[in-house]
Amino acid sequence: MVSLSKRRGFVFQSSEIYGGLNGCWDYGPLGVELLKNIKEEWWKFMTFRENVEGLDASILMHPRVWEASGHVENFTDPMIDCKQCKARFRLDTFAEQVNEKKKRKTLEAVKEKLTGDPLLEKFNTIFDNAEGQGDTKAAAAFEVMIEDADLSKAVLGEMNCPQCGTKESFTAARQFNLMFKTFMGPVEDSGAAVYLRPETAQGIFVNFLNVQGASRQKLPFGIAQIGKAFRNEINTKNFLFRTREFEQMEMQFFVKPVDDKQWYDYWKSERLQWYISLGMSEENLRYHDHPADKLAHYAKEATDIEYKFPFGWGEMEGIHNRTDFDLSRHEKFSGKSLKYFDEETKEKFVPFIIETSAGASRSFMAFLIDAYDEEAVNDETRTVLRFHPKLAPIKAAIFPLVNKDGMPEIARKIESGLRKNFKVFYDDKGAVGRRYRRQDEAGTPFCITVDTQTLEDQTVTVRERDSMGQVRVGIDMIGKYLMDKIYF
Amino acid sequence: MVSLSKRRGFVFQSSEIYGGLNGCWDYGPLGVELLKNIKEEWWKFMTFRENVEGLDASILMHPRVWEASGHVENFTDPMIDCKQCKARFRLDTFAEQVNEKKKRKTLEAVKEKLTGDPLLEKFNTIFDNAEGQGDTKAAAAFEVMIEDADLSKAVLGEMNCPQCGTKESFTAARQFNLMFKTFMGPVEDSGAAVYLRPETAQGIFVNFLNVQGASRQKLPFGIAQIGKAFRNEINTKNFLFRTREFEQMEMQFFVKPVDDKQWYDYWKSERLQWYISLGMSEENLRYHDHPADKLAHYAKEATDIEYKFPFGWGEMEGIHNRTDFDLSRHEKFSGKSLKYFDEETKEKFVPFIIETSAGASRSFMAFLIDAYDEEAVNDETRTVLRFHPKLAPIKAAIFPLVNKDGMPEIARKIESGLRKNFKVFYDDKGAVGRRYRRQDEAGTPFCITVDTQTLEDQTVTVRERDSMGQVRVGIDMIGKYLMDKIYF
Repeated sequence: MVSLSKRRGFVFQSSEIYGGLNGCWDYGPLGVELLKNIKEEWWKFMTFRENVEGLDASILMHPRVWEASGHVENFTDPMIDCKQCKARFRLDTFAEQVNEKKKRKTLEAVKEKLTGDPLLEKFNTIFDNAEGQGDTKAAAAFEVMIEDADLSKAVLGEMNCPQCGTKESFTAARQFNLMFKTFMGPVEDSGAAVYLRPETAQGIFVNFLNVQGASRQKLPFGIAQIGKAFRNEINTKNFLFRTREFEQMEMQFFVKPVDDKQWYDYWKSERLQWYISLGMSEENLRYHDHPADKLAHYAKEATDIEYKFPFGWGEMEGIHNRTDFDLSRHEKFSGKSLKYFDEETKEKFVPFIIETSAGASRSFMAFLIDAYDEEAVNDETRTVLRFHPKLAPIKAAIFPLVNKDGMPEIARKIESGLRKNFKVFYDDKGAVGRRYRRQDEAGTPFCITVDTQTLEDQTVTVRERDSMGQVRVGIDMIGKYLMDKIYF
Repeated sequence: MVSLSKRRGFVFQSSEIYGGLNGCWDYGPLGVELLKNIKEEWWKFMTFRENVEGLDASILMHPRVWEASGHVENFTDPMIDCKQCKARFRLDTFAEQVNEKKKRKTLEAVKEKLTGDPLLEKFNTIFDNAEGQGDTKAAAAFEVMIEDADLSKAVLGEMNCPQCGTKESFTAARQFNLMFKTFMGPVEDSGAAVYLRPETAQGIFVNFLNVQGASRQKLPFGIAQIGKAFRNEINTKNFLFRTREFEQMEMQFFVKPVDDKQWYDYWKSERLQWYISLGMSEENLRYHDHPADKLAHYAKEATDIEYKFPFGWGEMEGIHNRTDFDLSRHEKFSGKSLKYFDEETKEKFVPFIIETSAGASRSFMAFLIDAYDEEAVNDETRTVLRFHPKLAPIKAAIFPLVNKDGMPEIARKIESGLRKNFKVFYDDKGAVGRRYRRQDEAGTPFCITVDTQTLEDQTVTVRERDSMGQVRVGIDMIGKYLMDKIYF
């Protein structure tokens, strides 16, 4: 997938000629069109409604926003340093580098050292509650203990540094904030620190009353936004799945607290249907409802829409009942009221928020993987990207069958007529079969060929990508034909 | 303009409830649609051509990119500090705060002190070459001397700090880099420093061969990109004109060196026509050709497309012949060849680049200002935003004349039919005249009213924003009517 992505111009590594930049990717000619189409369909689906308004807030926001949101305090990963070689590790990846047997042996050594120590009781409780048997059970207990405030020191004391091999050399675990920090203005001191937003949602929350006032919306209504967000992930992985720079498509729907369940269920259903309506296979989609004891601090109810990626099920979108958490926090930190005044009941209150938070980059990857297909055609393997026509980067390719008899002139005329409204591609090189294959690989849904019959009756062959079926369409109807097939 | 922008939801101050963030703005419901439409029209105009490909490169790039581009070394403003109160000033704004008389008196004092000093000759040369008479001449000389490596110390030595009033307290001028710096990974040291891109162009340069290979383009061809860029401006000003976060629409066109002039002229003309084709007044547009002695270090020829803003003529877009400067620099710094192989002539060479670099945020402001109009209608002032229909945030508003006799039901049906393809607005509140005015202020080109005649003959009144003329259109033709009027 990464290789096809590069070869056909979907995705390149960022700054590749300089060896790349970890966790950052560039969208090439086909990729940028696919991404744009996904975003455009999301935008239409969400904002072409009476009760959803659009917004485009800046990436840099006032630093107090991230205090109010809890990101300054809580958006962290635990890290350890080797005092000897100064290597730094995120605890979970550090644990990943150790095999199960080593984990069991480490815990045995820890248990022995804890003899007579009151901590032994906690050790035993965690161990007894760990799932699995033998080494697996020990490994599960290890994962918990290494992040435990009391036990982590004892566990780390038994470990060697994976880089320099030194034993008992680790610092205690410290929290590392995942926000990118920069400084506004010429002075690099804490008063000038600002962050690259780690999520787009806060831009919506702080603009709640601005948007409501300008649009004169009444509850329930939503605010939708597409934009970049940044997280200083220590471990980037799985191509576009976990990156440092990514794009979100978020909508925050403001409701009366009493209506929260109804709208949560509504959006949960709407959002799954959106992926299906754009051709994503239902069997590769599922909800993952968060159990009550695993909910984020702001959430009353939450589900993920997951896609079955080659590396396993992964979240593409989260739907959350965020209650009045966010607006209340911003009220407190800004000192400004963010209450809604209900003209009918004359009540003033902080609305609840139902959030739909989708990853544009992750959706991109899912749509790309889902569209990928190989099939045998006449003893050859045909690689085809079965994009929904609305998402396809190129809508139609135009071929003259041969480069003579006036065919190129007719094909060029068709091309220039279509170019006003469609992204199209002209190709006159090589056998038509090869030209078809090349468009199959790009996911182009329609190939239009000017052939000998065209010279007689002013019709062209339109070949459909998935069925490879062909129909003849009059040249004067080709624009309308495409419009109907793609958008209606 | 700022006030209408906020009231009607075009632009809000970023993080307004926290007192705002200097140089950052949020686009509200109408603003985000206008901005999207501008970007979409640019994208179609540029990439719906056979020889221009799209790209979306990441904002964070490898730090060597900015060494190669010259930004680490040269993208700077001179700054001074007051040693007493620690206040920091950009030299040019510092100079702005001093009146002409004070500048003359300062230079008189400097001249006296320089008696017998070899620097006096330089002082006199600069003074003699300054334009104007009396105080104005002195002020012009002052502006040059304050940034002069030799004379600035003497000049600053005569100045008081505008903040604390202390004399002779300034440090020598130092260069302050305008790129936002942040750190990737957990360690904040120079090896982990990355920058927020100060322009989108470099993402195109480093991807030149990736895009060319994937798209199989031959020279001449271009790569187009829309994206955010960031500059840590000390002085932000004029609303959206100089901001710290902004969006660019850039296209780099790669040509054979011998063809550079032809393509420079071609794009210079194309780009001006684009603004005019979207309704911008020709009398508010002009070229500002850069004289040869004022060209940037990378440019062989350069022009700005300027708009007549309320504060004066200002650059919206630059068209530059960048020669082979950028690709050659990246070859040198990356050690990778960025040469193009010409299959016809079997030559390998570094192409020249003709750049069209437009500000999306500045274009937004120009289109907004240009559309703004007030006119007297029946002794009332009508405020109307005369956007080109393609740019208008809302394409049509639908009104039932009264909320009875089945009119709302018909209006709702028209609305839901149009919503699939157009951003529309439904309004049933107040007199129709007031509803028209409200749409005029939003720049909505068409208002559709369901009235008593509708009940008889299934036609509606379509009122056109600019002429206020009305025609009757059949309900079944209204979608096609709008499509033709807006897009064709």
